Amino acid sequence: MQKIDTIIHSAYIIPVVPKGQVLEQHSLVIDKGKIIDILATEQARLAYQSDDTHQLSSHILIPGLVNSHTHSPMNLMRGLADDLPLMTWLQDHIWPAEAKYVNPEFVAHGTELAIAEMIKSGTTTFNDMYFFPDITADVVDKTGVRAVVGQIMIDFPSAWAGSAQEYLSKGLALHQKIESHSRISTAMAPHAPYTVSDENLKACLKQAEQLDIPIHIHIHETDDEIQQSLKNFNCRPLTRLNNLGLLNNKLIAVHMTHLNDDEQQLILDKKVNLVHCPESNMKLASGISPVNDLNKRGLNIALGTDSSASNNDLDMMGEMKSATLLAKISTMDATALDAETVLEMATINGAKALQLDHKIGSLEIGKDADLCAINFDAINSMPIYHPISQLVYACQKHQVSDVWVEGRQLLKQGQLTQMDTKQIL
Amino acid sequence: MQKIDTIIHSAYIIPVVPKGQVLEQHSLVIDKGKIIDILATEQARLAYQSDDTHQLSSHILIPGLVNSHTHSPMNLMRGLADDLPLMTWLQDHIWPAEAKYVNPEFVAHGTELAIAEMIKSGTTTFNDMYFFPDITADVVDKTGVRAVVGQIMIDFPSAWAGSAQEYLSKGLALHQKIESHSRISTAMAPHAPYTVSDENLKACLKQAEQLDIPIHIHIHETDDEIQQSLKNFNCRPLTRLNNLGLLNNKLIAVHMTHLNDDEQQLILDKKVNLVHCPESNMKLASGISPVNDLNKRGLNIALGTDSSASNNDLDMMGEMKSATLLAKISTMDATALDAETVLEMATINGAKALQLDHKIGSLEIGKDADLCAINFDAINSMPIYHPISQLVYACQKHQVSDVWVEGRQLLKQGQLTQMDTKQIL
Repeated sequence: MQKIDTIIHSAYIIPVVPKGQVLEQHSLVIDKGKIIDILATEQARLAYQSDDTHQLSSHILIPGLVNSHTHSPMNLMRGLADDLPLMTWLQDHIWPAEAKYVNPEFVAHGTELAIAEMIKSGTTTFNDMYFFPDITADVVDKTGVRAVVGQIMIDFPSAWAGSAQEYLSKGLALHQKIESHSRISTAMAPHAPYTVSDENLKACLKQAEQLDIPIHIHIHETDDEIQQSLKNFNCRPLTRLNNLGLLNNKLIAVHMTHLNDDEQQLILDKKVNLVHCPESNMKLASGISPVNDLNKRGLNIALGTDSSASNNDLDMMGEMKSATLLAKISTMDATALDAETVLEMATINGAKALQLDHKIGSLEIGKDADLCAINFDAINSMPIYHPISQLVYACQKHQVSDVWVEGRQLLKQGQLTQMDTKQIL
Repeated sequence: MQKIDTIIHSAYIIPVVPKGQVLEQHSLVIDKGKIIDILATEQARLAYQSDDTHQLSSHILIPGLVNSHTHSPMNLMRGLADDLPLMTWLQDHIWPAEAKYVNPEFVAHGTELAIAEMIKSGTTTFNDMYFFPDITADVVDKTGVRAVVGQIMIDFPSAWAGSAQEYLSKGLALHQKIESHSRISTAMAPHAPYTVSDENLKACLKQAEQLDIPIHIHIHETDDEIQQSLKNFNCRPLTRLNNLGLLNNKLIAVHMTHLNDDEQQLILDKKVNLVHCPESNMKLASGISPVNDLNKRGLNIALGTDSSASNNDLDMMGEMKSATLLAKISTMDATALDAETVLEMATINGAKALQLDHKIGSLEIGKDADLCAINFDAINSMPIYHPISQLVYACQKHQVSDVWVEGRQLLKQGQLTQMDTKQIL
């Protein structure tokens, strides 16, 4: 008998890699924060012993969900302005509210609310873009979750930075501060082609290359954005970004709702990572990214909620269902983005986009123990014919019971272990 | 001080009629199963006293939700076959399973599971179509919920009936049995134009007129259905139904995903009730009903989940969000079907479609006390700027805390009062 830190016996384990695999009555063994074995429970009981044993007798154990696009502090603006198109929503509501209210305290409170919501709904990693990323990183550090925090860049002054140079230097200082953190990394995060000049995009690219980190940016969110670019730059935003050298396998391209044939071929050739945000794109009537087709052609497609101000939640369980429903109706093909594929998008594909797939995104020996357990013993998820299908189409976030990051339990039978729900509310 | 049966003090009351109204710190007063007053809590405390007082200090009280299209026993087939188009799904999976398994016991168990799920998610009334509607009616009677059960008609024999005449006579017998029931009524329920002959549709119409009840039918669910009708009847299904005299304000027309301009004008002229099932239509890639436009032009649009085999839940909270997101993206108009409008669809419009708006669908003095309370004191629904918006875009079914039908409490702080959850599972 080998003594190890934690052992989880589960009715079902879905490792995601290999795709579609469902292991019944299996156990996952954790030591020093890493997955060291996955084997039949019968064998696990003979081979391992631990003081921290979990019996998940009506649960599905999956990799922790990866939310590949968030603005976590905006949780404080959930429902501030709904039923409005993107530009009205941004220019008349969100940006004025941000100018008035955003400061370190706002960011700390909003991020806490967001992280509590994410852990409770099974998300263990998020890819964030907002002002005061240093505050976000502090909250991530304290709460035990995993994140990529963006070194934000935008062509107007904010409470966080007054100039391009200040955005860059503050981003760099943050990167250096957290460089050896096992759960936090950074990406360059120029907001969007329509809010960042060529010069500042080039500076972001240079800093990304120097630090060997990805670039996280909104691209082709709406047709308006494209029309504006044609007017101002005489080309579409993707062409402009390609000319600047930004398109490669370390680009995290969010939204991409309007893509002509040439652009689809271009991003395939360049192996760009696409982050699909179906609920936000629907709510703001932005457009539909052709993700079913691009996925079949080999593009890495991850999934994100966008902020709670345009969704209005950070629920990746719901986002998986929305992604497959939208793909089916928009292609008029009921087989589009099946349950197994959207589960990949919400886990391993997100990990790949964030350059973290060596550590997370699937349940494989040697990876970090970032896990999410869903209790299917509920009126709305019975009976069970196909666990992955049930997970995507019938389970909801309140069935998430237990969550671990690096083997540390952040949610235990539905209760946050590191955060005080009452105080956050 | 007037002594009454029940008084509910709520942080917010949303009566739905008038549209968009939000009453803060108000109380709803119930006596003998009916709403007898809605007034400011401060005044209510002086005017009424009751042994059954509820203090909902962080809740939104709304009319019980009306699910206008279900096949409740199919809850036992939840997730049986996913990621398939309608005809493959029906012909290769659902119909063979039904032929093999459907019997009174199957219907009783499936309906119990469905009703438990509906009550827990705030639905107080559902409009059902399935075999053995007498069994469904028994479960409805026993569990305290409200339903319209369909007198099913289909052109093939089933365990329920062997001929058209038997379908009609068994339906009639059921109608007569429950005629004086306050919570159960019937509708004629010919399955669809492609499964019921002209002769049998005429017989349904005749029985509906004699009994003064609505007709509940699937129409124009897919383009396939229309092409088949053009081949077999030389006209589109709606034209055929119009020729047979079925189109009027007592028709409950479900799906209607393919409607040309003439058909849209026709159903407006005939004041047909349209039941929109966005998640089912998306999942089966059936099509998109033009409900935003038709709603603006005055058509009564209700909302339904369809069965758990094509959704895969009976969650009207989620269906409201899906309805507005689908309307926004399909019209490329972020203002389409705003939160106030989808809440009408899920309540008063459903009541109108079922010819029950004199009793339910809104919180008005004199109506039956069919109510649903949602607790917004949760990480995923804070902060609150606009309660109706928050309800539709951020709240989820697990926040439904209390449900009443005819003033009788069926859900109390999240627990079913009339059903045994463990035994159902």
